Amino acid sequence: MKQITGGVCAAQGFKAAGVHCGIRKNQTKRDLALIVSDCPASAAAVYTTNLVKGAPLLVTKEHLADGKAQAILCNSGNANTCNADGPQIAKEMCQLAADQLGIVPEDVAVASTGVIGQPLNLAPIAAGMAPLAADLGYDNSLHAAMAIMTTDTIAKEAAVEFTLGGKTCHLGGIAKGSGMIHPNMATMLVFLTTDAAISSELLHKALSTDVQSTFNMVSVDGDTSTNDMVVILANGLAGNAPVTEENEEFAVFMKALNTVTMQLCRMLAGDGEGATRLLECRVQGAPDLATARTVAKAVICSSLVKAAMFGADANWGRVLCAIGYSGAAVDVQKVDVAFASAAGRIEVCKDGAGIPFSEEYAKEILLKDEIEIQVNLHMGEAESTAWGCDLTYDYVKINGDYRT
Amino acid sequence: MKQITGGVCAAQGFKAAGVHCGIRKNQTKRDLALIVSDCPASAAAVYTTNLVKGAPLLVTKEHLADGKAQAILCNSGNANTCNADGPQIAKEMCQLAADQLGIVPEDVAVASTGVIGQPLNLAPIAAGMAPLAADLGYDNSLHAAMAIMTTDTIAKEAAVEFTLGGKTCHLGGIAKGSGMIHPNMATMLVFLTTDAAISSELLHKALSTDVQSTFNMVSVDGDTSTNDMVVILANGLAGNAPVTEENEEFAVFMKALNTVTMQLCRMLAGDGEGATRLLECRVQGAPDLATARTVAKAVICSSLVKAAMFGADANWGRVLCAIGYSGAAVDVQKVDVAFASAAGRIEVCKDGAGIPFSEEYAKEILLKDEIEIQVNLHMGEAESTAWGCDLTYDYVKINGDYRT
Repeated sequence: MKQITGGVCAAQGFKAAGVHCGIRKNQTKRDLALIVSDCPASAAAVYTTNLVKGAPLLVTKEHLADGKAQAILCNSGNANTCNADGPQIAKEMCQLAADQLGIVPEDVAVASTGVIGQPLNLAPIAAGMAPLAADLGYDNSLHAAMAIMTTDTIAKEAAVEFTLGGKTCHLGGIAKGSGMIHPNMATMLVFLTTDAAISSELLHKALSTDVQSTFNMVSVDGDTSTNDMVVILANGLAGNAPVTEENEEFAVFMKALNTVTMQLCRMLAGDGEGATRLLECRVQGAPDLATARTVAKAVICSSLVKAAMFGADANWGRVLCAIGYSGAAVDVQKVDVAFASAAGRIEVCKDGAGIPFSEEYAKEILLKDEIEIQVNLHMGEAESTAWGCDLTYDYVKINGDYRT
Repeated sequence: MKQITGGVCAAQGFKAAGVHCGIRKNQTKRDLALIVSDCPASAAAVYTTNLVKGAPLLVTKEHLADGKAQAILCNSGNANTCNADGPQIAKEMCQLAADQLGIVPEDVAVASTGVIGQPLNLAPIAAGMAPLAADLGYDNSLHAAMAIMTTDTIAKEAAVEFTLGGKTCHLGGIAKGSGMIHPNMATMLVFLTTDAAISSELLHKALSTDVQSTFNMVSVDGDTSTNDMVVILANGLAGNAPVTEENEEFAVFMKALNTVTMQLCRMLAGDGEGATRLLECRVQGAPDLATARTVAKAVICSSLVKAAMFGADANWGRVLCAIGYSGAAVDVQKVDVAFASAAGRIEVCKDGAGIPFSEEYAKEILLKDEIEIQVNLHMGEAESTAWGCDLTYDYVKINGDYRT
């Protein structure tokens, strides 16, 4: 497994593009992205569990029902959600892309991100389709990654190279997400591509399994978006014998997928709205996986823990408090807590009670950009990690007047 | 039902006191409170559902097991939670109060609020007991209300006068709470007193029923405290025939209780850490009470809704989003949303989709101190209200470095 560059274009036969078409007022901001495979691909997706679903999700779900797709079209600046004409607009977007690419609209996945409840004007998208197609290139992942950003401060790309049946394969992706992130079965917008050959069924199995330990373990603000979606296309151009059963090759594919998604998770959490720090909560010693995940997410989601981390304050009582209300059946008298970062590691709570520690050293550890909150429940062998970020003035600023 | 003053001393035979004993460094801040009934009283309490429970809660639970108590001792500045010697310290606090008052320690309820995981020094409490007793007075509710404050900016008192069996009764209380507020079966610290005669059993029934529609519907930051507790003492000095069954008099008592607790709820939410606005979410048209409550709390708890209200931004999409992930089985295509305040009312969403509205008028409405978010689910007759506050820079500031 080798880290490579190229994002959503790392895999053979995938072109990408991103242009400014005019949905956003800021003309320097790309707002329309396209990802295209040279040939039809196996496709799978997972969607937000929010009952309010963006119109593009409904249309994408319909189009991916046959397990096939060839292109992904995505705009930022408007979520096309809670609009009476939403589904119609989403369908017309697919038609526009299909016409441009000479494929059928049913092979287009569509996504939108941005403000909810404001009609999405089709005109700039229609006008932008030709420039978008002109921008398509085998090394333009970054353009697409930039075009799907909302309040993100950095474009998010990752990719790996791996081997299946003697053939060199690639898997890569781009992601956007900064606020309204608290996934529940899927998350944010993530587009993944691979040249590995794999059946739609196993592709879906791989994706839906992977998100449980990756994107579903990321929280920025506890708000599950209406437009979260993860889409993966596998075009088979690597030439491996297609993966059609859960054998060792499937395991290799899962590992490649997980390597990319884990990186994207860390990028998403670290770029959470207003964030100054990436927080990881690693829970060990849980009686089972569900407990480990519940505890890790509760700690990562606590506003008080997040604010304490912003202040580099080793207020471990808030960690214990979050574990206590997580809903997990934990023996709080057995819990150990430690903080770790590039500056070192410090134990602050043993058997559910405080122990003396150096506040100065703790401060030094917590002033780093990436902080690990380590929890040991001493009840078993299961473990889990969740990712989040600190709660800052800028989060409030960004979200106090988002629409204007 | 008449609003009166007097707080926890509004009822006959209740004295209160609050002094600075030295738990806090700031010598102008009272940090030790005492409430005493002239005679033994029926007593009931509800406690946080957090698995991590402050030591005082465990001791209070033990002391109230017989349904009787005569005094409540509470300190602020230190929660006496997650300390190895916590239970012992809490018991010794009861003993100190009992010795001072000439009663048995088992008739003392004890509470603590403040930082978690730092040992509570008994010395200042022991030294403060005599001054505390000297401060006891029949009109000193405010001293006690001030002594239990942490990050609260205002002392919280409420009281009513009502009639039971021809006798004039009173019920009043004090509350503290500003952060770490997301009650689950109980909340914050609330001490209630009444001179009505009522059995311990019915007193407990009244309290545990009432909190479900009052304190359990308040959220400041989604963090369920380890030390939340609501205690009520009923000393019977009003002379009414004791309420011992669920008759009309019990209903009158419930109404008196609810009037006081509702006022305290609004004060708690309005004084949430860093808050500039009190938010009320009123859900109507729900198929059942549980759905109404789930939806109301999800809206009130959403960080994005809270931040939008801070910015006076009519971003109703976030309200719909919160309803969608609340977990309630709602038909999102039927939902109406409106904002209301002293400046007027504006409808912003109809049948789950946006409708045109004046942004200027919406802004005017949302710039008031008290905002009502009105949701109609159009599915039935049940309704519920939840209280919260906006999310502000100051919340982050207060909680970024709470311990120092």
